[in-house]
Amino acid sequence: MYKYCVSMKGITVVMNVSKDIAVKRLLERDKILLISHMSPDGDTLGCSFALYNALSSLGKNVRIACSDAVPKRFEYLTEGYVEKDFEPDFIVTLDVAALQLFGDATSCYREKVDLCIDHHPSNELFAKETYLVTTAGAACEIVYGVIADMGVELTSQIARCLYTGIATDTGCFKYSNTTSETHRIAGELYKLDVNYEEINTRLFNTKSKSRIAIEQQVLNSIEYYYDDRVAVVCVTQDMIEQSGADESEFDDISSIPRSIEGVEIGVTLKEKPDGSCKISIRTNHLVDASKLCSIFGGGGHKRAAGCLIKGGHKFAKIKVLEEISSVLS
Amino acid sequence: MYKYCVSMKGITVVMNVSKDIAVKRLLERDKILLISHMSPDGDTLGCSFALYNALSSLGKNVRIACSDAVPKRFEYLTEGYVEKDFEPDFIVTLDVAALQLFGDATSCYREKVDLCIDHHPSNELFAKETYLVTTAGAACEIVYGVIADMGVELTSQIARCLYTGIATDTGCFKYSNTTSETHRIAGELYKLDVNYEEINTRLFNTKSKSRIAIEQQVLNSIEYYYDDRVAVVCVTQDMIEQSGADESEFDDISSIPRSIEGVEIGVTLKEKPDGSCKISIRTNHLVDASKLCSIFGGGGHKRAAGCLIKGGHKFAKIKVLEEISSVLS
Repeated sequence: MYKYCVSMKGITVVMNVSKDIAVKRLLERDKILLISHMSPDGDTLGCSFALYNALSSLGKNVRIACSDAVPKRFEYLTEGYVEKDFEPDFIVTLDVAALQLFGDATSCYREKVDLCIDHHPSNELFAKETYLVTTAGAACEIVYGVIADMGVELTSQIARCLYTGIATDTGCFKYSNTTSETHRIAGELYKLDVNYEEINTRLFNTKSKSRIAIEQQVLNSIEYYYDDRVAVVCVTQDMIEQSGADESEFDDISSIPRSIEGVEIGVTLKEKPDGSCKISIRTNHLVDASKLCSIFGGGGHKRAAGCLIKGGHKFAKIKVLEEISSVLS
Repeated sequence: MYKYCVSMKGITVVMNVSKDIAVKRLLERDKILLISHMSPDGDTLGCSFALYNALSSLGKNVRIACSDAVPKRFEYLTEGYVEKDFEPDFIVTLDVAALQLFGDATSCYREKVDLCIDHHPSNELFAKETYLVTTAGAACEIVYGVIADMGVELTSQIARCLYTGIATDTGCFKYSNTTSETHRIAGELYKLDVNYEEINTRLFNTKSKSRIAIEQQVLNSIEYYYDDRVAVVCVTQDMIEQSGADESEFDDISSIPRSIEGVEIGVTLKEKPDGSCKISIRTNHLVDASKLCSIFGGGGHKRAAGCLIKGGHKFAKIKVLEEISSVLS
């Protein structure tokens, strides 16, 4: 449960602490700075704003810092937030696994983090103390327990924040990181007066106009091969420009071809500005995507991997299909 | 809690019973027929197969009847099911709200149902006794409680069945029928050894090739009006034929236009074989869809309504946009 290591200054410090210690530290301090990671998602923001509300209700001075602005879809999390100016005596990071995730505006705090609350197994243990629960589907699950143990009563706004983190990080309870505990906590949050349906619609059933444009073009590009066991989609530079979509809106495009019934290998070809082609391969049960991509110098996981092929998407497609042919036969 | 009414034969019968009574009845009987509704969904099948496994583990003879075959995506629910031939001494319907939902093959049992377990507020109370919990997100939530009170230990297969019903009826915990109890039960089911991620992928991230073809055509048809506050999509008879999709695959097409960020009114025009056009209108917060549709003799709910317009989709679109124009201004 506990890891110890020697800090750069030669002093042994506890790097992985229990919930009790995390709670004790937070209760002891008065001027607390909470840091979310750059390009903030629902979990890091949910943690920060939930903890902001909980600590504020105890009369503490609390501020949230993040290198990037709160995305519009998460603006409801900021309800009731008042920016205060003070010199922090305790610095906490929430859902931040690595130093490079601080971003420019908060990089000045990288060496000064007192407590890190996180759930990523890859956590770099950069803080003086780290409360890490790698079995948690979301860092908000951990913060739920911290808030409860601080003796703060849940409010609707805290529930809204925690639910947002849990729902977004687990794909609305669909991903493999969802656990019994995830649902148990969601059940407790549902006891509060919150319009969860509205949050779910906003988070999971809303798409930007440019995302719709990209999906339209991607669906138009679908080609099936080898008795429909392989589906290939293509994203060209022209499509990207025409859609007006930004990089983040392409995130899960590569899950589309594999999601088609009967498809064993989904291939997404994405043209890069330099004329090369990024290949994402998603497989179901039979084929090792990582092995397939390693032929082209790439890699990844068994079910999701990638590689880069020099040349346009038509050339890349022929190359990939050739290799798939020998794998399937 | 309890409703009493007089049956057609002039005998007063209890029409809404408690869980204790439902459990008592099931424990008393030995040859039990479980009936799922026609065009079976995850909830009615989840209930039946969960209860089949639970009652079978108590040594009872159990059979499941349904007027339609188990859809392929739900076939895993039938694992371990063995069809037995016997004359039932107790007939139970699961998730069946109305007599017309029996279908041909089970219509012979319509007047003979001993116990109805359901969650629909519209339940017609057709059975001798009805255990109705209208606050349950899924009938499987109710069956979970029944199985627990029968003293049957949950197995992975029972968990698989109950989870399927709960997840499908609540849109994977997204819809407004999701409650604290829904998540609490899901949390209990997650304690069993089940690959829930695989079930979620199968149920929520898999689309048929024909559904993909329909989505492609629908996205190609999107038109925006009135500063992008209105999005219109169109499904023509040609599209339907070309895609090879069946009626059920069009189910939630009408949710696509409203799901676009900034769109207040989503309009879906679907051509019918007789040359008329079915209009589905979905709105966000500002416009009453039911009022809008009532202009054309239709109706529905505030956020989702429909109507029929005689004429092709181009004519229908002009008519609907005219009315929307005056609503928005």
